[in-house]
Amino acid sequence: MPIYQATTSAPVNIACIKYWGKRDTKLILPTNSSLSVTLDQDHLRATTTSRADPSFEKDTLWLNGKEEVIADGGRLATCIREMKYLRSQLEQQKPDAPKLSTFPVHICSFNNFPTAAGLASSAAGFAALVASLAALYELPATPSELSRIARQGSGSACRSLFGGFVAWEMGSAPDGSDSLAIEIAPREHWPDIHALICVVSDDKKGTSSTSGMQRTVETSPLLQHRIGTVVPARMKAISDAIRARDFDTFASLTMQDSNQFHAVCLDTDPPIFYMNDVSRAIIAVITEYNRIALETTGKRKAAYTYDAGPNAVIYTPKENVREIVELIVRYFPQAEKFKDPFSLFGVAGVGEGKLPEGFNERVAKKFDVGAVKGLIHTRVGDGPRKLGDDEALLAASGLPKTLA
Amino acid sequence: MPIYQATTSAPVNIACIKYWGKRDTKLILPTNSSLSVTLDQDHLRATTTSRADPSFEKDTLWLNGKEEVIADGGRLATCIREMKYLRSQLEQQKPDAPKLSTFPVHICSFNNFPTAAGLASSAAGFAALVASLAALYELPATPSELSRIARQGSGSACRSLFGGFVAWEMGSAPDGSDSLAIEIAPREHWPDIHALICVVSDDKKGTSSTSGMQRTVETSPLLQHRIGTVVPARMKAISDAIRARDFDTFASLTMQDSNQFHAVCLDTDPPIFYMNDVSRAIIAVITEYNRIALETTGKRKAAYTYDAGPNAVIYTPKENVREIVELIVRYFPQAEKFKDPFSLFGVAGVGEGKLPEGFNERVAKKFDVGAVKGLIHTRVGDGPRKLGDDEALLAASGLPKTLA
Repeated sequence: MPIYQATTSAPVNIACIKYWGKRDTKLILPTNSSLSVTLDQDHLRATTTSRADPSFEKDTLWLNGKEEVIADGGRLATCIREMKYLRSQLEQQKPDAPKLSTFPVHICSFNNFPTAAGLASSAAGFAALVASLAALYELPATPSELSRIARQGSGSACRSLFGGFVAWEMGSAPDGSDSLAIEIAPREHWPDIHALICVVSDDKKGTSSTSGMQRTVETSPLLQHRIGTVVPARMKAISDAIRARDFDTFASLTMQDSNQFHAVCLDTDPPIFYMNDVSRAIIAVITEYNRIALETTGKRKAAYTYDAGPNAVIYTPKENVREIVELIVRYFPQAEKFKDPFSLFGVAGVGEGKLPEGFNERVAKKFDVGAVKGLIHTRVGDGPRKLGDDEALLAASGLPKTLA
Repeated sequence: MPIYQATTSAPVNIACIKYWGKRDTKLILPTNSSLSVTLDQDHLRATTTSRADPSFEKDTLWLNGKEEVIADGGRLATCIREMKYLRSQLEQQKPDAPKLSTFPVHICSFNNFPTAAGLASSAAGFAALVASLAALYELPATPSELSRIARQGSGSACRSLFGGFVAWEMGSAPDGSDSLAIEIAPREHWPDIHALICVVSDDKKGTSSTSGMQRTVETSPLLQHRIGTVVPARMKAISDAIRARDFDTFASLTMQDSNQFHAVCLDTDPPIFYMNDVSRAIIAVITEYNRIALETTGKRKAAYTYDAGPNAVIYTPKENVREIVELIVRYFPQAEKFKDPFSLFGVAGVGEGKLPEGFNERVAKKFDVGAVKGLIHTRVGDGPRKLGDDEALLAASGLPKTLA
């Protein structure tokens, strides 16, 4: 009997217009549309191997080497069931196709970045899960169709089904059929967009985004205005900016929307805080950096954005990355050498650099080593990739290679 | 020739419904109504002596022993001019009254709390200035009428013309004639309201409230919703809560409005931050304290509020102050012994106390000594007081006693 197996990887995405609030918590239908940049899988990715085999006892999933419970009616079960249903439809149309929809699956998934980094690992994870099952089942589904299923695993996962610049359209149908991701522009349209992730140390456990966003929906008087008025206008404006490769407008909207997302968290009762003093200092440094740029060129050079945690993601055209890394390292000295995937610095590593002329150094204090505990340099990337069997995570036995 | 002189003191007030945004920056007309609690002058006050004398060369003002410039068309000059105008009207009605309106004035003002404490010193200061000139000029003006003039010195100063619980009604007249303070309830109505001020250390200079609030008016999309919809409802609800002595509702609205004020600051472009990690930790501690209280009694026991800085003011009925001081000192150890004006603690001072049952200690970490650099315990207080000549700040020479 042949082995039915597929391996795919999927990217992380970081939103510029933030998703915060569900109108349907079961189907994961959002209260507003959102838009993100897909990051490069060369640096950050979730990889998943799925195998269907009638000899397997039950559907089983391992995440980073550890078996996860697939709870009845839970998000994992929903995604697997929906994918099997699509396969069963295909089997009805092609009676010769093997009845994979009736076989249990083994799924093995691995993130190449620490969960503790606070990056949106569930988005990449659910996108890789859905993409690998789609490959296993040889489904003709488009990324948008798959995004509808990934959305039910983790809302923002739907945006990881595309590369480049991706909108999650909130839709209006009660069954969620029109709440899915679409591509605003592929990476090739604007490959110059780089990202610097500042992993910020935090000594408190933040509110989970799932419970936090529902508390905001229930208690923030400002959220309704954001949903009804602000976001629709920003979605249009930032999509236009991306199409026009207008970084200044893109940056301005990205920062405003990050701040407004954290504003509605603060307007929640009791309030939710994700940013800390280090996050705020990074904002102060980037604000000053942009102030100088606006004064000299009339345009911003960088955009910070913060998800439900203290980490900053700084978007910038590639030409500025070197300057920004030097700035960040000046205020937030690093314990480890900067991993320099684009070879911006020589063997000497990141130096003191030169402050941009007129830069007011006193906008932030210099922090101790470890306040920013890591820097990751990446850029806009492509959508899920099909990988060869040599990259499969399951051994011949059907168990994770790490357990074999 | 007789000496024409008067000395008054005026209180600090801390808003529960926040003033943030002017619709007229010259007349200081706000974009929304606000409401505050007046604090007790036994603990925090500005004292001002005004003297009118034809031999004085010009209007002169000393603040905390230092001469201040009275700039033409500035806020000080406006208040002095308006008060002289009221005096001149009185002189027209009473031809026998001395023509004090034509004499230069010497004004000497002193705050009994450090400006660095970040308390609203300008509110108490302008209230004391206006009240002392009103006493000097023997004006029949009501506190509301005086509040209209104090408002032009510093918006929130208008609320320091009354004791107890005070609303600043935004008004609608373009000339500001109906933008003034009114008493919602005197201190005697609800004398049980105490306040614990936590003076928080900060290593960055914040945005001034004058420039900050205008940036919010110009750039925050959420502010309009706050102004138009949220605040009017809250003004009514909190006034009702005060009249009913309903602390739970009072606390809930006070905290929500503090958070919403900081939310619109964050929604400003570039964003404005006043609270820091210490401020957020105090919020976490009070939120947990209230969670326990809500679970056991269904009612909140404390309310935090933050103005344009990192300091917390915690309102609570007197019976809870001891417990809250112990809680705060547990997380934020103090360098100096707690000044205990209400003799809550014995000679041993503040002890470890007992955590309320079920209190989750891990809502905040324990900070180093100095994170909260001082605690001030006070309570709801009365309005401006006329003081005797023995408390005058000007010497017989007409110069500040501190300079004599």
